[in-house]
This record gives sequence, C-alpha cells and structure tokens, in this order.
Amino acid sequence: MADSPYKLILLRHGESEWNAKNLFTGWVDVNLTEKGEKEAVRGGELLRDAGLLPDVLHTSVLKRAIRTANLALDAADRAWVPVRRSWRLNERHYGALQGKDKAATLAEFGEEQFMKWRRSYDTPPPELADGAEWSQSEDPRYEMIPSELRPRTECLKDVVARMLPYWYDGIVPDLLTGRTVLVAAHGNSLRALVKHLDGISDEDIVGLNIPTGIPCVYELDADFHPLTPGGRYLDPAAAAAAIEAVKNQGRK
Amino acid sequence: MADSPYKLILLRHGESEWNAKNLFTGWVDVNLTEKGEKEAVRGGELLRDAGLLPDVLHTSVLKRAIRTANLALDAADRAWVPVRRSWRLNERHYGALQGKDKAATLAEFGEEQFMKWRRSYDTPPPELADGAEWSQSEDPRYEMIPSELRPRTECLKDVVARMLPYWYDGIVPDLLTGRTVLVAAHGNSLRALVKHLDGISDEDIVGLNIPTGIPCVYELDADFHPLTPGGRYLDPAAAAAAIEAVKNQGRK
Repeated sequence: MADSPYKLILLRHGESEWNAKNLFTGWVDVNLTEKGEKEAVRGGELLRDAGLLPDVLHTSVLKRAIRTANLALDAADRAWVPVRRSWRLNERHYGALQGKDKAATLAEFGEEQFMKWRRSYDTPPPELADGAEWSQSEDPRYEMIPSELRPRTECLKDVVARMLPYWYDGIVPDLLTGRTVLVAAHGNSLRALVKHLDGISDEDIVGLNIPTGIPCVYELDADFHPLTPGGRYLDPAAAAAAIEAVKNQGRK
Repeated sequence: MADSPYKLILLRHGESEWNAKNLFTGWVDVNLTEKGEKEAVRGGELLRDAGLLPDVLHTSVLKRAIRTANLALDAADRAWVPVRRSWRLNERHYGALQGKDKAATLAEFGEEQFMKWRRSYDTPPPELADGAEWSQSEDPRYEMIPSELRPRTECLKDVVARMLPYWYDGIVPDLLTGRTVLVAAHGNSLRALVKHLDGISDEDIVGLNIPTGIPCVYELDADFHPLTPGGRYLDPAAAAAAIEAVKNQGRK
C-alpha cells in the first residue's frame, strides 16, 4: 500500500424512523429503527472482518448517524477511538419539506417538481421559517452557528459548500497523521463528499445513490484523491441492491 | 445560581461482566452486563428529569464507561454533544491482580493484604509485566503513551497523579466556557477526582465509595471548588444503598 498512505471509510446511517414512514427528514433528529440498528451492527462487523479498524470517528450531530457509528464501533471493538462531530456533516436541510410525506409531496407537486427538489443540484425547496414546526432554529446544538450561516433549506450544491470546510479542516488533518478515518453521516452529506473526492460533475451527481449501512473504503493518494474512483464497498452485492432500493424511495 | 458558574456531573459506569463475575478488572476492557446497561439508561433518565443536560462528555477509553455514557446520553437526548476521551480517566490499573477472582485473592492472601491492595492509598499490587495475559501493553489505544508513563500497576495515589493533569487541561477548560460537563468514568478515577475536589485526606479517601449509574452533580465556584462538599446524587436513597453494596464487593 506504498501508494496509499490514507484510508477513509464512509458509512451512511441505517434506516431511520422517518425513512420507514417515508417522510422528508433533513435536520429533524429522528432515531434509527430496529432494522437500522441491525444495519449499523452489520456495518461494524464488515469493518472488523475486513481488518479495517477506524482510528478516529467523525459524525454529524444527528442521532441516526451517531448511533450508527456507536453501534458499528461497538461491533468492531473500537468504541474507544476519538470522536469529532460537526453540523457540517448533517443531512441536507430539506427546508419546508421537512416532516412532509414523500408520496403525498409527489402527488401534490407532480413528478417534475418532486424530482427537482429531491435531486436537482442547485434548486433548494422553499425555506423553512425559523420557529416553524420541524425547524431547528431553537435547538441548542446549533447555537454556535450565527443566523446568517444557519441553513433554512439546502440543495446539494449548498451541502457541498458547507461540508467542504469540514473536509479540509476537520478530516484531512486526521488523515494526514496516518489514521484510518471513519465518517458516519447521511445520504446527501456523503454524496457531497463523494462528488468532491471523485470529481463528479454537477450533472452526474444527480444519478449517484449511496447505500445505507455498508462501509465504503477510499484509499487516497498524497493529495487526498482516490486511487480508485468510487472507492470500494465492503459488500458489493448488498451495496448494488441497496442503491436500487434508494432510487425507488418516495414511490410506493 | 449566581455563585455557581460551573456544573460538573460524575457518572460511574454500571455493572460490568467482570463486576458480575467478581474479578479484578482494572484496564481490561470488559463490557457492561444487561443490568449495567439498564443502570446507564436510568442514569440518563435521572439527568433528563432533573433538567441537567450535559453540554460536553468526557470518558475514559474503556468501553464500560463509553457505553454507559452513550446509553445515558441517548436517554437524555444529548447524543450530539462533543465527546473527549482520555486514558487518564481509566480505572485504576490493578497490576498482577487483573483477571483474578476477588474472593480467591482474599482467600489466598488474607484480609489484611487484600484490603491493602484494594484500598490503601499508596500500596499498589505487584506489577503486571508487558505482554502478560491481561496486559494492555500491545493495545493500539495506548500507543501514544510512552513506555515510561504507561502504568503496569497503580495505587490510588498513582491514579490521582495521572488523572489530575486531565482535570486541569481537559475538563476545567470546558467548565470555563460555562458548559455543563459530564464525566463518565470508573470507581477509582472518580474517587481520585472527588478526593481532589473535596480535599479529602489520604486517610479518609479509603472509606469513600461511589455508587454505579447514579449521576452526582457538583456545583463549583469560580476556583472550581465545590459549593457543597460531596456534591449531590440525583437519587440519594439509591446512592446510599449502592454505596453499601460496593463496600461488600469481594465477599460472597
């Protein structure tokens, strides 16, 4: 591995209560389902069996990613590693769609608008007003984010913009010390990171889905660029099946 | 609370597999039992019900403290707080006693020697050689501790000496920012901290026991000294009963 000093593991959280209910979640802090817990444990077992043991953990500040990481690290017997958390790894803020049923939103606004909100690179949903139901404007975990920085809705382009400073300032320094870094996060914050790593275009990122609970390992060169585009899923067959399932979210 | 800018919460981990088996544990990284998990959840519920919500967590690098903290924070809905870990919050290293049955050790060495190893302030058990069974000399989590610093046995005096730098350099700076600090640790690392906080003499600390799973809140003055010696247990009746139970450990 002389050409790959750096190892980065990406892990998307398992099924959450609102995934199961088919609701837009975003920054709403819902828990894992029992299925999601099992996915997380299995993710940790895959790491353990592959001998890919994280030396440090980065998570969002949302419990579905935090619990996924805790369960996976317990399973890999690495609960003791240092932990760092940042809102910059949070799921995309879904704006006024947070708390809404995906199928009902599809029915109400039609396929074109629905897919634009879900997948266009630069069209965010309408803003969610501070203090509204499902807004996090009063949540103490975000009190260090000044009002002008705090998202009220986001498109993927916005997620890339607020995630990248954490990649450079929070994650890269840990990689630089030679540590294997685990990032436990969300569908869209990980898509934003993968877009950056693999140099995926604004157009092509629309078609990229990340499966839940299956660790993806990137070996990076000295410039923190992947040796193999797309990295390597520890269970490729399950990853392929899960990617199909994510594509069909919102459709009954 | 004008006179108490600082709030510190101490939480000793719940029952571990080796507590249940009556073995000396020390730095051996055993898990919680189901009873221990329940104690941890209840500890978090006590915090939540008292409105004492941690803003930051400090733990040892041993899973019984880490899992206790994770379960308690999940129950208090504070899984998102920043986490810091240090070996300086670890349980006392029990030297050559690690892995030994407490009752068998009592029978083999007699009451006087047994109590000296368990409770004298400055008499450590014999050293555990590097590489021996139950030694952590090869554990990667301790690779940043140079050989001359790494404990091979400890008395409580040794624990005070290695814990205090973390109190001053790791915990006090978090208190200073006004954050409510949760320390999830072990019987002896917490006894060491309480000895310092309450100014307990080398003689009197011998009689101090800390109950498992019951948060103890210290309100501290501007010099980080307790307003009330001994702090305040969130469930005083359960704490008193648990302290009695700890006293009788090692006796069937």
